[in-house]
Amino acid sequence: MRAARYYGKEDIRIQSIPIQPCGKDQIRIAPAYVGICGTDLHEYLGGPTFAPASPHPLTGDTIPITLGHEFSGIVTEVGDGITTFRKGEHVVIQPSIYCGTCSACKNGVENVCETGGFIGLSGAGGGLSESVVVSERALLKLPDNIPLDVGALVEPLSVAWHAITASPHHPDSTVLVLGGGPIGLAVVQCLVALKTRKVIMSEVSGTRQKFAEEFGAHHILNPKECDVIATSKELSGGGGPDVVFDCAGVPASIKTACQAVKAKGTVVNVAIWEKEVPFQPNMLVFKEAMYTAVLGYQRKDFQAVIDHIADGTLKPSKMITSKIQLDDLVEKGIKALIEDKESHVKILVHVGTNTG
Amino acid sequence: MRAARYYGKEDIRIQSIPIQPCGKDQIRIAPAYVGICGTDLHEYLGGPTFAPASPHPLTGDTIPITLGHEFSGIVTEVGDGITTFRKGEHVVIQPSIYCGTCSACKNGVENVCETGGFIGLSGAGGGLSESVVVSERALLKLPDNIPLDVGALVEPLSVAWHAITASPHHPDSTVLVLGGGPIGLAVVQCLVALKTRKVIMSEVSGTRQKFAEEFGAHHILNPKECDVIATSKELSGGGGPDVVFDCAGVPASIKTACQAVKAKGTVVNVAIWEKEVPFQPNMLVFKEAMYTAVLGYQRKDFQAVIDHIADGTLKPSKMITSKIQLDDLVEKGIKALIEDKESHVKILVHVGTNTG
Repeated sequence: MRAARYYGKEDIRIQSIPIQPCGKDQIRIAPAYVGICGTDLHEYLGGPTFAPASPHPLTGDTIPITLGHEFSGIVTEVGDGITTFRKGEHVVIQPSIYCGTCSACKNGVENVCETGGFIGLSGAGGGLSESVVVSERALLKLPDNIPLDVGALVEPLSVAWHAITASPHHPDSTVLVLGGGPIGLAVVQCLVALKTRKVIMSEVSGTRQKFAEEFGAHHILNPKECDVIATSKELSGGGGPDVVFDCAGVPASIKTACQAVKAKGTVVNVAIWEKEVPFQPNMLVFKEAMYTAVLGYQRKDFQAVIDHIADGTLKPSKMITSKIQLDDLVEKGIKALIEDKESHVKILVHVGTNTG
Repeated sequence: MRAARYYGKEDIRIQSIPIQPCGKDQIRIAPAYVGICGTDLHEYLGGPTFAPASPHPLTGDTIPITLGHEFSGIVTEVGDGITTFRKGEHVVIQPSIYCGTCSACKNGVENVCETGGFIGLSGAGGGLSESVVVSERALLKLPDNIPLDVGALVEPLSVAWHAITASPHHPDSTVLVLGGGPIGLAVVQCLVALKTRKVIMSEVSGTRQKFAEEFGAHHILNPKECDVIATSKELSGGGGPDVVFDCAGVPASIKTACQAVKAKGTVVNVAIWEKEVPFQPNMLVFKEAMYTAVLGYQRKDFQAVIDHIADGTLKPSKMITSKIQLDDLVEKGIKALIEDKESHVKILVHVGTNTG
């Protein structure tokens, strides 16, 4: 079968590889649409980071590995013992891989499993291929009223949903979102779906500002043109936002987040950091604020996102700014996102022959 | 009256100053014992920091100001309208000054009042004088079975109590305390009083290690001799401590705290920082840990500490390592703590003629 294989920095090849067998308790999926993620770009530009340069403790795989961890698909084969899914069903893949035995897994936070990883980043196949074999726990059913392309958006929306539910957010909160990339925009959409009364987006790019507006942000600030700290304090009635989501992950954003948040407020970091940043803890001390960080998602976040798309409270289809074919992954996908990231929210790769 | 007046860096003078009038709704206290605090040392060595170089927004005072914010005393005069305290009563002073109108105060967290301060640091008199006039809300009664010298320990213990109650601590928690100075040792005592099953202290100094042992720490680690992260993980059954209190506030301690804490655990910063430190948020990201910070205390923390000393669950008297007279404040107090800080936990200044 055809698959996008990651060999290392700036080296992704579309190749023919053997298909995986579908054993007992396993399910074969034909991926339909696959989102290209910031993590994929980081791997391409500077990896391998997540991709295993030595055998991954859970998958046993080493690069080259198949990419693609944000995807929907169609069940094409069910192994012995599988009764909950049947051939032809549309599904979304929850790509988390976890050990089930470490202290994090035992405490129900398998998303921070000590040896965890992701289908499509850590081995065990990936969405950017014509077939992938997964266990039952990796699948959620996609209701009939959600098309397969929108199904590929469930993963990034689940990152946002997880971040929000990990915060002390409630509908009356004033929330500041720093950075209008795909995750920042997903956070805005989920906040709006949760009926948050005041959502403020801080973003430099005009294109991204327009997306934020379209997705329902109530106030949009350009940090090059206004004082985000002062303005967000004003907009929140003086004390500062209750919750700040840092979806930018740069030295300026961690400072803005900690300085803007109200006394006893919460900063939620939704970024992965490339290196250390200068940090003055007194920013939190003098208002007893909290800085917390989230990683990935849990199955319940996927289900919540699917339910909210199904009932129309989440309408994420405008996130899809382009659809390309597998052969064009690098040129029209990865490179387009690197060279013109502000015009795009999500580029989907259409895999296989199904039409979704 | 005689008072210790802070003029600026390395300039504290014992002088005669006029006594304050005691007006309506005010109470005059004759301070009995006054603890010298790390903040006093910072002001002496490098201030003015907390001490107001320009008029303090709430007290209106500018340096020179009277020092002393950890103190007990005896009521010597009650103004018109005061019915809850009477002459001769022993009291502890809760020195917080707050506006009551900012968003923090309105939300019940007056300890992070935007313009807040402390009696003995921000003007409005101080404990290191023969007389100080305060409002009713600054006073708590000292029960008969708590001597006045121990009463002066209520303030630093309240810092610790506040930090613990601001954390998700419970008796079954494994807790790591970084730094065995006065506040670290106060945290250990309060944790033990709260029946915490596993309290681990990390401290370099042998003298401070002995204090930690005496105050009930269950495990004492020397970071120069062992890997505190690995050992605290082992002691907590593999996952890491549930809560880490950073009472050291140095670049090494913030790293140890964030690396040692368990997945979904909480780091509580109880230090004030002199400058920025290098910080890698991924330390928290990959385990969804929380970094929070506390400042000062609330009245309820003082009351809880007084109640626990009164019923014998807190026995802090061994914190008092020296008692000196007001005239000896700089030489036998401030300088002794700077030059030989590890032999001391708390030096008390005995003020006035009362015998406590």
